[in-house]
Amino acid sequence: MTERIRTMVVGLGPIGLETARMALERQGLELVAAVDLDPEKHGRDIGELLSLDATGVTVEDDSIAALRRLDPDLAILCTTSFLPRVSDWIEEVARAGVDVLSSAEELLLPDLQHPELARRIHAAALEGGATVLGTGVNPGFVLDFLAVLATGVCRRVESVRGVRVVDAARRRLPLQRKVGAGLSREEFEALAADGRLGHVGLRESTALVARALELPHDEVTQSLEPVIAERDVATPHLTVAAGQVAGIRNIGVATLAGIPAVTLDLSMYVGAPDPRDEILLEGDPPLSFLVPGGVPGDLATAAILVNSARQVAAASPGLKTVLELPPPRCVR
Amino acid sequence: MTERIRTMVVGLGPIGLETARMALERQGLELVAAVDLDPEKHGRDIGELLSLDATGVTVEDDSIAALRRLDPDLAILCTTSFLPRVSDWIEEVARAGVDVLSSAEELLLPDLQHPELARRIHAAALEGGATVLGTGVNPGFVLDFLAVLATGVCRRVESVRGVRVVDAARRRLPLQRKVGAGLSREEFEALAADGRLGHVGLRESTALVARALELPHDEVTQSLEPVIAERDVATPHLTVAAGQVAGIRNIGVATLAGIPAVTLDLSMYVGAPDPRDEILLEGDPPLSFLVPGGVPGDLATAAILVNSARQVAAASPGLKTVLELPPPRCVR
Repeated sequence: MTERIRTMVVGLGPIGLETARMALERQGLELVAAVDLDPEKHGRDIGELLSLDATGVTVEDDSIAALRRLDPDLAILCTTSFLPRVSDWIEEVARAGVDVLSSAEELLLPDLQHPELARRIHAAALEGGATVLGTGVNPGFVLDFLAVLATGVCRRVESVRGVRVVDAARRRLPLQRKVGAGLSREEFEALAADGRLGHVGLRESTALVARALELPHDEVTQSLEPVIAERDVATPHLTVAAGQVAGIRNIGVATLAGIPAVTLDLSMYVGAPDPRDEILLEGDPPLSFLVPGGVPGDLATAAILVNSARQVAAASPGLKTVLELPPPRCVR
Repeated sequence: MTERIRTMVVGLGPIGLETARMALERQGLELVAAVDLDPEKHGRDIGELLSLDATGVTVEDDSIAALRRLDPDLAILCTTSFLPRVSDWIEEVARAGVDVLSSAEELLLPDLQHPELARRIHAAALEGGATVLGTGVNPGFVLDFLAVLATGVCRRVESVRGVRVVDAARRRLPLQRKVGAGLSREEFEALAADGRLGHVGLRESTALVARALELPHDEVTQSLEPVIAERDVATPHLTVAAGQVAGIRNIGVATLAGIPAVTLDLSMYVGAPDPRDEILLEGDPPLSFLVPGGVPGDLATAAILVNSARQVAAASPGLKTVLELPPPRCVR
């Protein structure tokens, strides 16, 4: 693989911008296009948005026009968590023979909630000879990929427990808002009922682990509850008073007759003690894998997208999961 | 993959026997042959050697005859650490179209010390349409595979440090002997000079990590020194007196102009405190991955062989490394 992978980044929010930065840094990738719908960004050099020197890549707003003009090898999509908003676009791009990598959380295991969309994307990818992959840190690495490969050294696995604890006080304001920091319990519950709070993708992670390990299960469920601050917590962006919502606890469970086979327990709240990622396997041998401090979310999601580019380029066509490709790795 | 993988296990030492046991347990594998050169084992049912009921698989001594008679899909080879002793055999089996999985440590990265043998095995595998893979826990997982995939979430990696600490007091007698427990320093040095002590494969692990991460290096070296017991240590198998050798410390280093890019630090001695596997990445972000207690060696090596069978069956032909296939996982 000596040719550089001609890469288009679509969606220049925090993750897309970091992805574009890393694509510029990597010898193996060539950033050929950057696309965003925000008129504020149009016509500006991507280097300017990244506080870098000019790169010659100007932000444009029509990804399909860019694709036709530039014929990239790979499109990295960082626009949304939800598959229905992007599945037509992914189909079109894959059918044109361009690989697609995306941080869209539902793309981790798209047939779980959108089997018809998954079927169509897979067919388009086969037709175009392209590979489509959803990945990221969570979902995509800490609670699913790592949990599954940890079992590679096991004779038998009875159950899997994954724990991710994020201290939202150390994260950017949009994440603090996403977890509801500073809301009252009532505000939290109203937003949660509306589906406007909580982490997307935990259901997909849970199902991916249960399926990959062939752990019998009859149900995959997900719960969301607020974590209430026990004392005032100040962050660089906001302050949460005791009694207000500090953030969320999301639990995904795959159960058989009510007994959990896979439990993924995600806490993201300001002031969370002992941030970490942890996989606990019950089986023979029992094993645990720990990432003290936890893998940082945004930076690492951009990194894993870029670090998966070669694997996607080398893969056979179709809609894949992270478990079907060789593992991502960081190269120059 | 609904068909069972017809599997032959060759070499019925501790790892081969455990591998045969797991092949019998797994729904996805069918144990069709068990081979060992030891006349004590010939003609006995493999179930008897495993303290199980009769299985109908009788231990035989001619692996090629077994292969011709039974036409397995996969041969799992657990006879030696050293490639020159088995490369003719691997070539013949691969050329016959049978996949080969082996715990032979040098097969992790065979072209490092034996480029001509690696070239011949690869050619035979292509000719026969077979896949050949060397794997295990160490080498194959804790200090190399895990180190590389841990970087999947990194923007940049400057150096990698892997640490494995094994308390040999908790392991079987052959391992205690292999690390020199109970020897005098003089005896240790005489055996070490003869190449009869120390872990095989650390050089391969070190080079695999450096290559996979494209960390520039001009040298890969390996050192071996005894760990001297500071006080008496009793194990179920032997007692080491203070001042005697408790075991080994092996360090593999990939350096550029003397600066280490990859350091793999393996200690195996009786009474070793804080047994663990640990990967420490310097870069952006810095990260560490910890397996408290460490992955147990023999059981887990048998497990990862069996857990790699599907990946090998699905792979394209040729001589592969563990980084070129989807990760192993434990399934029923």
